[in-house]
Order: sequence, then structure tokens, then C-alpha cells
Amino acid sequence: MNILFNKPPITGNEEKYTLQALKSQKLSGDGPFGQKCQAWFEKHLPCKKALLTPSGTAALELAALLIDIQPSDEVIMPSYTFASTANAFVLRGAQIVFVDIRPDTMNIDEQLIEAAITDKTRAIVAVHYAGVACEMDTIMEVANRYQLFVIEDAAQGMMSYYKGQALGTIGHMGAFSFHETKNYTSGGEGGLLIVNDEQFKERAEIIREKGTNRSQFFRGMVDKYQWVDVGSSYLLSELQAAFLWGQLERADEINTNRLASWRAYYSALQPLQAVGKVKLPTIPAACTHNAHMFYLKVAGLYERNVLLEHFKVKDILAVFHYVPLHTAAAGKRFGRFQGEDRYTTMESERLIRLPMWYGLPKDDQAYVISAIEEFYV
Amino acid sequence: MNILFNKPPITGNEEKYTLQALKSQKLSGDGPFGQKCQAWFEKHLPCKKALLTPSGTAALELAALLIDIQPSDEVIMPSYTFASTANAFVLRGAQIVFVDIRPDTMNIDEQLIEAAITDKTRAIVAVHYAGVACEMDTIMEVANRYQLFVIEDAAQGMMSYYKGQALGTIGHMGAFSFHETKNYTSGGEGGLLIVNDEQFKERAEIIREKGTNRSQFFRGMVDKYQWVDVGSSYLLSELQAAFLWGQLERADEINTNRLASWRAYYSALQPLQAVGKVKLPTIPAACTHNAHMFYLKVAGLYERNVLLEHFKVKDILAVFHYVPLHTAAAGKRFGRFQGEDRYTTMESERLIRLPMWYGLPKDDQAYVISAIEEFYV
Ligand SMILES: Cc1ncc(COP(=O)(O)O)c(/C=N/[C@@H]2[C@H](O)[C@@H](O)[C@@H](OP(=O)(O)OP(=O)(O)OC[C@H]3O[C@@H](n4cc(C)c(=O)[nH]c4=O)C[C@@H]3O)O[C@@H]2C)c1O
Ligand SMILES: Cc1ncc(COP(=O)(O)O)c(/C=N/[C@@H]2[C@H](O)[C@@H](O)[C@@H](OP(=O)(O)OP(=O)(O)OC[C@H]3O[C@@H](n4cc(C)c(=O)[nH]c4=O)C[C@@H]3O)O[C@@H]2C)c1O
Repeated sequence: MNILFNKPPITGNEEKYTLQALKSQKLSGDGPFGQKCQAWFEKHLPCKKALLTPSGTAALELAALLIDIQPSDEVIMPSYTFASTANAFVLRGAQIVFVDIRPDTMNIDEQLIEAAITDKTRAIVAVHYAGVACEMDTIMEVANRYQLFVIEDAAQGMMSYYKGQALGTIGHMGAFSFHETKNYTSGGEGGLLIVNDEQFKERAEIIREKGTNRSQFFRGMVDKYQWVDVGSSYLLSELQAAFLWGQLERADEINTNRLASWRAYYSALQPLQAVGKVKLPTIPAACTHNAHMFYLKVAGLYERNVLLEHFKVKDILAVFHYVPLHTAAAGKRFGRFQGEDRYTTMESERLIRLPMWYGLPKDDQAYVISAIEEFYV
Repeated sequence: MNILFNKPPITGNEEKYTLQALKSQKLSGDGPFGQKCQAWFEKHLPCKKALLTPSGTAALELAALLIDIQPSDEVIMPSYTFASTANAFVLRGAQIVFVDIRPDTMNIDEQLIEAAITDKTRAIVAVHYAGVACEMDTIMEVANRYQLFVIEDAAQGMMSYYKGQALGTIGHMGAFSFHETKNYTSGGEGGLLIVNDEQFKERAEIIREKGTNRSQFFRGMVDKYQWVDVGSSYLLSELQAAFLWGQLERADEINTNRLASWRAYYSALQPLQAVGKVKLPTIPAACTHNAHMFYLKVAGLYERNVLLEHFKVKDILAVFHYVPLHTAAAGKRFGRFQGEDRYTTMESERLIRLPMWYGLPKDDQAYVISAIEEFYV
């Protein structure tokens, strides 16, 4: 047996659609498949505008440009996240203010946000770790009170919900990733920005099209297009959109399949949690998740290393995750940790992600589970 | 007849390689095809490092990050270029200093650069319009004298040379585009950064990988990867690299075919130039070009509009090009024009690009030529 940690999903029609795009002679961004995907998202993630991007990172960068982050503005986020969450704002000159996480969900502790707000704070980034929602009611309430923007980093949160609202549609904007490690992929790299606040709709299109009014030109609204604003090229190629379309058609199937694997892990490992050997993920009552990830937490760093070694011997690829940003060189340079690091470092050192992908065979999963049981007998 | 202005090249093997990548389960950036492409570029564009990017725009942004452009630094470039050339530096806070172009090549007038240099100047961007090189010896000499960086915007310059040196390999870095409008495309969107100066090699990899040392981690040099620097996600998906690989295998064929079309236009329209009706492109003796574009220049804006109307009636798609950046709203906000606009506006208003693509049928081309002849009888 050799069990992969991740395998990019392929549901059947990706090949057909990719070839269709390839032969269509319309390969650059926002072709027919790109538009179909965007329409799908606008329906399933009710929002003002859905824009495909070359990566989740690019979606976050587009959001940071849209809220006009200026040098020395402060942005609040958890330290337990991917570097891109912070970089998007550091690229605009922001100072990152890291707040501790909740041990149950590994999400930002919503109760600690208010203490991190200063005169310079402009935004809060809610990272929905493992596709499990942050406590959004509290976050939105604090943000509204202080007139801050809320950007949801829903890189892992496609098809997840908080009190019935799709992740990404609750804050001012939501960023998603279609990297091959995510539930849905646009052929390896890709992302999406969801704009919920009307005020950003038009400018989002301009910044994404190199700071030009090219979209308006192609809609016949101006007779030539011009440079009107700062911008980048945040378009996803048609080839990638076509691949993604194959997956969106089967979005429910992917979701159902992953959830079944997630539940199988949970119920099989529940006895080990009951006797205090491991800690399993918590899904708060307000959250409907997408089985993006199955992790367990062990006693600490030492036990994790031993267990990872055990997995290696068994030819199982299980992996740790983020190194907290505030402990890294760039985190020290571009940010500060507000308050006490009570959980971020400790909980991140305990966490192991288990193999989880669309189509993970039951036998493989049983093998992973028995490897864990064997470790803890 | 309905003659397209551009048709993305397809040479034969793009489909095979794209499907191979699609089925490989390695879809994110820098997979086997990505590495093959990068090795090909490192051989054909002798350099320290070749890195595929999601767009030419992203390659320029990566270059601007590498030379550490700071707010209020000045960057010199022509105004007759695409918005991305300027945006990459505006995103870092730079002030753009536009310099007039030479009417013969539409490239920056190298003789005017020195007068635009101030204490704040950090870099010169040499945009090789239509794949015809800027006067690089003069530009490099001025840059060295003032210790400025030279970034080549070779978006249109793949397979072009200046005194035998491949474009992109002469300055400190070179940026290329594989957008569907270019000679080679990575499935619609894509780009490449060529690093010629050793000092940028390692950091280029880090910035491209979200500001992390992930590349070092996967080479086994560190036991976990961390956030070490500012960064973005400048990887090209494997699907796109596979498509591009199909074209690189046939790079010479594409080049030869385009050059034949270019020469056919040139010799057929030469008589009209001889009688002063139109002006054709000039290829300086130092330049070997790649037939990226065939343009002609007419008397002025009015005649251009009438000729474009004539083409429309004939079902020929011929188009104007850049609106000079300094005349646009963002150009006024983020830049200034140094000296007199003697040629930029005037020459840009006279220019029309003719249909030009790999595989343009001889009959179609003859039809375009006769439409022009008919217009000028
Ligand atoms: C030097 C340089 N540096 C960097 C990069 C970045 O590379 P990436 O894209 O990989 O990030 C580029 C890329 N630019 C290319 C093309 O060169 C450019 O022409 C344009 O192409 P379009 O898709 O718009 O199509 P088109 O057929 O060129 O024009 C279509 C109509 O649009 C009208 N038009 C056109 C212009 C330009 C303009 O200002 N205003 C305007 O009203 C003319 C027509 O009727 O955009 C491309 C991305 C570059 O050239
Ligand atoms: C919240 C959030 N916001 C924004 C975005 C941006 O989206 P785009 O990518 O679309 O721009 C993301 C995307 N991140 C994903 C994954 O979540 C992330 O895990 C990682 O995946 P990898 O390819 O590295 O693979 P892996 O199997 O997760 O790990 C492989 C090994 O690397 C070790 N490792 C890992 C980490 C993380 C780290 O810090 N340090 C570290 O030593 C653990 C293993 O042994 O990168 C992805 C792009 C995100 O999560």
C-alpha cells in the first residue's frame, strides 16, 4: 500500500471540456467556460460578482487592492494560516496583527479581535480553516461597530456554510482557491473572488483587467480601452475554467464523497478520542462543512514526529500544516502578535492531516485508521 | 471571407500533452512539463533562471518586487506600451517617467533616457515593441553609468535577437507573455521571467512561492517551509505548461511560418510605401525579429478610422493598438511625461495592426493586401 495524502479530483468530464476549450480558439480569460463558472458561482454563492482568478492568492490580492490598503494600515488575522493570507496585505504595505486561534476549530478567536483593533485597523481576515466557518456573527458585529472591512479567506471553504449562508458571501468579499489540494480544482492552480459589497463590483473588473476599462470596451460601452487605475492580470485561462466546469457539474458528488470519508474517519477514531488519546475536529452547530480536511491532534510535537514516522513506515502520507506566521522571519518583520499565543503554536504542533480526497478507497482509509489504532494500542 | 486578427497557435501536440498532464495527478505549478519548459528556456535564452508565471503581467510584478521598488522611486519607460508595464511598478508605489518613442520602431528613444534620470530613478523598462529590439547597447550603457536596473519587457519578443543576444537575456531580467495573442501561448494566459543577474535567483523562487522557502523544502534542504519574505503565487499550472510544451517543440516552425507572412506583407505593401501612401515597420540592422506583429502607418487618425471602416466592410479584423499611457487617467495620476511628446501620440494614432498568426492562409493574406491596395488606388 502507498496512500497519498492528496489526489486532485477528476470526476469524468474535465477531459472533454478542456479539449473543447483547447479547440475553441478562445483561450484567454473570461471565455465561455469562464463565464459559465462565474454564473454558477453567482448562483450558488449569492453575491454581487464572481470573478475567477489565477490563484486564491491573487483573489486575496485583488481584495486588498479593492479596499485600498495603504502603508501602515493594520489588518487583523490569525497567525495559523497560509502565507498568502498575509502577503496580499503586506504587498500593499500593511502591518499584520495576529490574533490567537480557538483550539476547537483552529479559527481566529472572535472574542480576541476587539482588543487588537487600533486607529489604524482597516480589515479583519476570517480564515475558515478546514472549511469550517469562523464565528461570523461576532466578527461582522465587531467589524460593523468599528467600520472595518471583512475579507473571508475561504480558500478551503467552497460548499461550506455558516447558519445557512455560503462561506465567502458573508463578509465584504470572499476569496477561494482551486489549487490541486482543494476540493475543486481548475487544473492545478486557480482561484475566485466573490464581491458582496456593490461598491467594489466595477473596480474589481478594472483591477483584474490590468487597470483598464477593457471589459467595458468589449461590452461596447467605450470606443477604445485605456489605463484608468492600478491593476494586475487576474484572469484564469479558459483551459483551466473548462477543467473546473467539469468539477462544478459534479460539485455535489465530490462533496458527498468527501463527507462520507470524513465521517468514516470520525466514527472510527471516536473511541480513541473517548479515551483521551487524540482530539478530533469540532464542527460548531452553526457550521455545515465541506470535508476539506480531516485532522487529528496528538499530545504534542514529539508524539507527532513519532506518529509521522510510523505513517512513513506504513507508506501513508500524512502531513502537518502551517507553521504559525508570527514565528517565521517574515511574520516578525511584517506583523505582531496581539495578546498571548495561548493556542496558535501549541495546537499547530499537535495537528496531523490524514489522507483525504475525492474517491479515497474505503480499504485505503481502513488501512490508515488501523495504522493509527495500532500506534495507540 | 472573414479574416481574424489573431488565432492562437495550435501546432499539433498541445492536445496530447495537455491530456497527459490532466491525467498525471500533478496539476499544480512546476510539474514535469513546467520543468521541461523552464529547462528549454534556460537553454534557448541563456540565463541564470527561467520561471514560468501566470501571465506576462505577473512576470513584470515579480521583477519589480525583486529590484525592491519603493514608494516614490522612479521608473523610466515608454508611454506607448501596455498598462501592465507600468502597473507592475505602480503597485510598488513607483512614479512612472514616460519617455518619447522612436518613430521607426515605436520603441523608447534611447537618446532621451539620460535626460529623464533623477536621484530617484531606479530602473529602465525596455519594451521591445512588435518583437523588435530596443537599442540595448545604449540603454545598458546609460543604466550602468547611473547604476540602474534594466527590465526588458519582452512580452512580444520570444525568439527575437539584438546583436545575436536573445531578447530578455540582456538586461537584469526579462519578462515574456504567453497570452493567446502572442507567438507562443500556454493555453491563453501565461508568462515567464528570465533572471540574468545571479543576485535575484534565489529570491525569485521565494517570492514566486508565496514568500516561502517551499522550493528548498521540496529539495530537502529544510525540514518544514516557512514564511520568509513578501511574495505572491506566480506559478503556472501544469495544464498550461503542457500546452506550451507542445508549442516549444515547434518553436522554429511557428517562427518560420510567421516570418513568411510578415515578409509577404512587406514585399506586397512596399510599393505603397514607395509612393508615400503608408509607412511600414523598420527592422534596424542590429535586430532579428520574430514577426510578432505586422503594422502599417497611415497619414493620421482620420485616415486610420476610414481604413478601419473599410476593413470592417471587407470582414477583415485589423486593429489599432495602445492608447499612450500618459494620456490616460491613470497615467496622469501615476506618472509624468519627460520632455516633448513628439512621436508617441502621433505615431500611435497612425498605426494599424494587420491579421498575423501562425497558419494565416496565403489567400487570406492576399485578400487583406488587396483590400489595402484597393483603398489606396
Ligand atoms: C508590452 C506588453 N507587456 C506586458 C503585457 C502583459 O502580458 P500578459 O497579458 O501575459 O499579462 C503585454 C500584453 N498585452 C497583450 C496585447 O499586446 C494587447 O494588445 C492586448 O490585447 P487584447 O486582448 O486587448 O487584444 P487586441 O487584439 O490587442 O486588442 C483588442 C481591441 O482592443 C483595442 N485596444 C487595445 C489596446 C492594447 C488598448 O490599449 N486599447 C484598446 O482600445 C484594440 C482592439 O480593437 O492585451 C494583451 C494582454 C504587452 O503587450
Ligand atoms: C488559507 C489559505 N489561503 C490562501 C491560500 C492560497 O491559495 P492558492 O494556492 O490558490 O493561491 C491557501 C492555499 N494553500 C494551500 C494549502 O492549504 C497548503 O497546505 C499548501 O499546500 P502544499 O502544496 O505545500 O502541500 P501540503 O500537502 O499542504 O504540504 C506539503 C508539505 O509541506 C509542509 N508544509 C506545509 C505548509 C502549509 C507550511 O506552511 N509549511 C510546511 O512545511 C507539510 C507537508 O509536508 O499550499 C497550498 C497552496 C490557503 O490554505
